[in-house]
Amino acid sequence: MGKLTIVGLGLIGGSMGMALRRAEPENTEVVGYDRDQEVMIRAHKAGVIDAIAPSLDQAVKDATLVIVCTPIVSMRKVFQEMGPHLMKGAVVTDTASTKTEVMRWADEYLPKTAYFVGGHPMAGKEKQGLHNSDDALFDERPYVIVPSVDAAPGAVAAVVGLAEAIGARPLYMDADEHDSYAAAISHLPLLTSVALFNLVQGSSAWPELAGMAGPGFRDLTRLASGEPEMSHDIFLTNRANVLHWLDRYIGELQKLADMIDSREDNESLYKTLTVTQIERDRFIDKLPERETVKNMELPSSSDAFLTMMTGTLVQQRAKELTTFLEDQNRDREEEERIRRRRDEVEDLQKPSE
Amino acid sequence: MGKLTIVGLGLIGGSMGMALRRAEPENTEVVGYDRDQEVMIRAHKAGVIDAIAPSLDQAVKDATLVIVCTPIVSMRKVFQEMGPHLMKGAVVTDTASTKTEVMRWADEYLPKTAYFVGGHPMAGKEKQGLHNSDDALFDERPYVIVPSVDAAPGAVAAVVGLAEAIGARPLYMDADEHDSYAAAISHLPLLTSVALFNLVQGSSAWPELAGMAGPGFRDLTRLASGEPEMSHDIFLTNRANVLHWLDRYIGELQKLADMIDSREDNESLYKTLTVTQIERDRFIDKLPERETVKNMELPSSSDAFLTMMTGTLVQQRAKELTTFLEDQNRDREEEERIRRRRDEVEDLQKPSE
Repeated sequence: MGKLTIVGLGLIGGSMGMALRRAEPENTEVVGYDRDQEVMIRAHKAGVIDAIAPSLDQAVKDATLVIVCTPIVSMRKVFQEMGPHLMKGAVVTDTASTKTEVMRWADEYLPKTAYFVGGHPMAGKEKQGLHNSDDALFDERPYVIVPSVDAAPGAVAAVVGLAEAIGARPLYMDADEHDSYAAAISHLPLLTSVALFNLVQGSSAWPELAGMAGPGFRDLTRLASGEPEMSHDIFLTNRANVLHWLDRYIGELQKLADMIDSREDNESLYKTLTVTQIERDRFIDKLPERETVKNMELPSSSDAFLTMMTGTLVQQRAKELTTFLEDQNRDREEEERIRRRRDEVEDLQKPSE
Repeated sequence: MGKLTIVGLGLIGGSMGMALRRAEPENTEVVGYDRDQEVMIRAHKAGVIDAIAPSLDQAVKDATLVIVCTPIVSMRKVFQEMGPHLMKGAVVTDTASTKTEVMRWADEYLPKTAYFVGGHPMAGKEKQGLHNSDDALFDERPYVIVPSVDAAPGAVAAVVGLAEAIGARPLYMDADEHDSYAAAISHLPLLTSVALFNLVQGSSAWPELAGMAGPGFRDLTRLASGEPEMSHDIFLTNRANVLHWLDRYIGELQKLADMIDSREDNESLYKTLTVTQIERDRFIDKLPERETVKNMELPSSSDAFLTMMTGTLVQQRAKELTTFLEDQNRDREEEERIRRRRDEVEDLQKPSE
């Protein structure tokens, strides 16, 4: 029996538990931990998790896979606290909306004997919390996988398998790529929504405006109902990318303003609106092609997930780990050798004094 | 039997026909006209309208109520063409997204013997056209009523009754008020959506970004799939208001950017996000109070609609019209009298030469 631990039983952790229960992975015990004991007990009673743990240490002890679903800014501390208690070869993943900082914290606080594979399911709701959990939350949603540089292929495949088991579409990215893209596709939309709602709500005519609001205004301000903690964490841990895209967005609005303002040229505005409609329809009809994880040479990931959970992979991973550490040593020795050789050559090239 | 004519059988005209059929008003024949004969025949076959007309003249002839549902920029010409054929006391309304220009055209091209009451149902879909019509399109949606200065109370009540018959929530505004409010609550959201989609779609990373897009990006760019003709007309006929709100929106984004950029003050951002969430939730939970048409002293509007359609109001209106014209004449005479009296007084006050 493999132990899978979910740390943090909010909307994402809770939905993860429910989606896993739906997937019925063989030989897997899902243990849940939340610093709020009441939430943990509720999750257990609701059958979202199979068991609870009295402490974070106990929760991650002997776990084959640990999924950290806490708010971003708590992750550093969670990594720090659980690091020493992770078993050799454990796979750790997370679900944070930004990745660069999280990867840095994992590198800093998790032991080298565990594998970290960052994750970001592109799914959510405005309303957080266990009681909003949904076993279909991840269905057909993109699930970004950000392997750390030293994660073994088996570990990566296991997280890909997890994503598939809960119904998501896994895709690979590195942390910088993820954060830049997420700024455009997720964090900028959040800001446009907050700004729109704030501006209109702040108007003295708000009662009239609200009475006039149709589905457009409601849909476009939906993200403004998101949890402030989460949004705040996102903006703080992805500041540069968010500001970059926000700046470009303002530029785009300015371009539209110029077109509307122009009394000579009505063509540009019309053309822009037409092209936008065509492209938006194309986007909705069919997502553009992208290299999916399927194209990458990896062991079948659902197999990897199952194998890991049934424990037979633990031995393999121990072997992989040994190989990995040996390889790393060899690489280091090779680098050292090259460096020494270069120094020697430089010495030889120096003009004699 | 009263004749109700719908001019323009696109999404709004078609949905109007369907919603009226659902409402089953007594003694009403719904005649439809569209310059595209094929559309008109399809609407008739589908039972959206009871009858068709060979020309605009014939369509509006003897009609008690004419609802103009054409694109905004076509309305001027439609008014011009149908004006001479309207019967005395006919009520004309429209469904355009902007009102100032439309009211001006109505004043200029419709005969003084007809009553114009502007209308704007705050409902729609990205996809226009008869085939997207829906008898529930107006259900619970705000329906702005903009009476012209010389519309008789009975005419206004009839249009309010129409709005109620198709399931909408009527509310009063004047044209300037409407256009300023619509710019904030409807036209600005449209622009934010177009800009967001255009910016992200124009990025070289678009294939990756599209693959990563979750429901947030989809919802927030929904309006970018709107018909370019319609959006273009809106921006051109509400230019100043749209530019005003767009400018304020850019200011709001800039404020958020400053908060995110600040490394000293994280409080403001968090506070802003929290207040936004609270206010957005309040908006969704319960619309703010606003003076509804119920508060205004008017004949019961559903009665007014029915009475009009059954024809008994036609006589009343003829009487109203006579009274109205008499009043207008009396007002004019009174003004003339005052002007003459003032001139006399001024003459008396002039220093003798």
